[in-house]
Amino acid sequence: MESSGETVQLKQYYYIGVDLGGTNIKAVAINKHGKIFCEKNIPTESEYGPPAVIRKIISIIDNFKTSKKLSKMKLVGIGIAVAGVVDMDQGVCKFLPNLLTGWKDIPIITQIEKQSNSKAFLINDVRATTLGEKTFGAGQGVENLICITLGTGIGGGVVINGQIYFGSEGVAGEIGHQIIEPYGPRCTCGSRGCLEALASGPALCSQAIKLVKQGSDTIIRDLVDNDLNKIDPLVVENAARQGDMLALEIWEREAYYLGLAIANLLVVLNPEMIIIGGGISKAADLLFEPIKKTIRQRVFVGPDIDKLKLVRSKLGDEAGAIGAAIWAMLNLSKK
Amino acid sequence: MESSGETVQLKQYYYIGVDLGGTNIKAVAINKHGKIFCEKNIPTESEYGPPAVIRKIISIIDNFKTSKKLSKMKLVGIGIAVAGVVDMDQGVCKFLPNLLTGWKDIPIITQIEKQSNSKAFLINDVRATTLGEKTFGAGQGVENLICITLGTGIGGGVVINGQIYFGSEGVAGEIGHQIIEPYGPRCTCGSRGCLEALASGPALCSQAIKLVKQGSDTIIRDLVDNDLNKIDPLVVENAARQGDMLALEIWEREAYYLGLAIANLLVVLNPEMIIIGGGISKAADLLFEPIKKTIRQRVFVGPDIDKLKLVRSKLGDEAGAIGAAIWAMLNLSKK
Repeated sequence: MESSGETVQLKQYYYIGVDLGGTNIKAVAINKHGKIFCEKNIPTESEYGPPAVIRKIISIIDNFKTSKKLSKMKLVGIGIAVAGVVDMDQGVCKFLPNLLTGWKDIPIITQIEKQSNSKAFLINDVRATTLGEKTFGAGQGVENLICITLGTGIGGGVVINGQIYFGSEGVAGEIGHQIIEPYGPRCTCGSRGCLEALASGPALCSQAIKLVKQGSDTIIRDLVDNDLNKIDPLVVENAARQGDMLALEIWEREAYYLGLAIANLLVVLNPEMIIIGGGISKAADLLFEPIKKTIRQRVFVGPDIDKLKLVRSKLGDEAGAIGAAIWAMLNLSKK
Repeated sequence: MESSGETVQLKQYYYIGVDLGGTNIKAVAINKHGKIFCEKNIPTESEYGPPAVIRKIISIIDNFKTSKKLSKMKLVGIGIAVAGVVDMDQGVCKFLPNLLTGWKDIPIITQIEKQSNSKAFLINDVRATTLGEKTFGAGQGVENLICITLGTGIGGGVVINGQIYFGSEGVAGEIGHQIIEPYGPRCTCGSRGCLEALASGPALCSQAIKLVKQGSDTIIRDLVDNDLNKIDPLVVENAARQGDMLALEIWEREAYYLGLAIANLLVVLNPEMIIIGGGISKAADLLFEPIKKTIRQRVFVGPDIDKLKLVRSKLGDEAGAIGAAIWAMLNLSKK
């Protein structure tokens, strides 16, 4: 991706991508080469409900349009990525579990289009992240890849033959709800032993709290001043980086479950690359070797494990917004 | 598919498909509409080694060519499907575990082409079955589907956006080696708790033998004249059809594991259809309801379960040979 800040030429075109999450709304304005002209990151404040949130999105769009950098360029289209279940064809947010109030069957695209006077397109946020990484991030030039985002939840996206794959109802990629241990812990979805129930941020923290409470010898207790509710993935990461055995064991466990999930994806889909993104991926260097160990112990039929590229996402927190802008680009180029 | 036996017209074209399995070599000659003109099924006798087996294949091809039905038609190409790992580009059988002697790195396509004077193309047998079902069987007109073959092993094939999907190394679809129970029984592949180790024909029989030995009340013992080595899936099927509770329990267990595997495929790939083929699929009516029950208990995020089409294969034992012929067709139409 090119860096921003160069002189803007006349008659250039740009796309806006918005990533609507439970905590923040992130937005970027990019051209078709992935050059970022503007960025914005503001709190979602979802407690004020959908109309207020949509007004915030519109104000970012207006802000971009009138900014010095973009005032002489033409906005072609807007992509909106949201954390939840979407009807892409109708542009409707069916259910956004991370947003507080009223996000059920909200026709966000109609409203954005009306208020912005631009064409807009809806996509799930993890599929957008995947599209971003495939187009301008770690997955450039790769035909078959799977992107896994590790955070409060575990999401995913699948690229097949160079194209993002949505499945027959547009919901393919729910990698976090693969069942890894049929009799494992209850998942928020209602099933048991899903990858998300075993390896999400909250699952990692629960495991840490449990082990610290059991009295294991660890510096984690000191790092949170004895307040175990303060344990988060970053604390466990810091402890591991200081060589804390308990913290290392927790990351090994995390990698073990991820390794099982990835093993299953490898035998079914034989991708060339697995991209790990999301908040927890910042600890990727603690995860990659034990993930590979599990894969080597588990995959004997099919893919050549040595050829697999297991990499960290490149676009970071902007991947979803960038992917949303690409989604607008792809839809408009079809017409 | 049309039935055979009509008057052959001049200048018609046909393709030969050969399915080379551990027990039998099956072959068909079909036109581009899937009309079958000739069929052949002979024992593989793999103990005589690759050259003898390849001679058998050539003799079938010669036999077809000189048959009355095909003598005035033109052979366009040959597809060879094999049970094992293949290098499709090089036309080499890398490893065929079900064939007895010497099937390691055998350049079968070079030999078939030389001896038949026709273009030939290699494909894995389950991918060929999937292609057959997609083109002329249960999957006609379906864009995204997964075909699972249940037999001595468990294989699979994935159709994405109307095309058979091979993955980055040509080995996608190894559904039998998804890990369903990480601490489950040892699989022949070297891992543990693979679907194949839990739900293949041999796994089903082991379970039956174990339960019968434990003295459960069942008619299975009578059906095999007290010789438990005679227990095969058909015996367990017959017992279940007579209402035998133990046999029904064994099928429920089979369906449970298949349901878990299918649940994982649904959340990741959101296919419109799952096709169940292979020997055990003859008991499909015993499996479908309990499979659906497991899926309903396990899939809460993503696909709408009520929209899923769970069906039995339509082409039966010829699916692999028909798919091999289609594989030749597809490759030749590219050029």
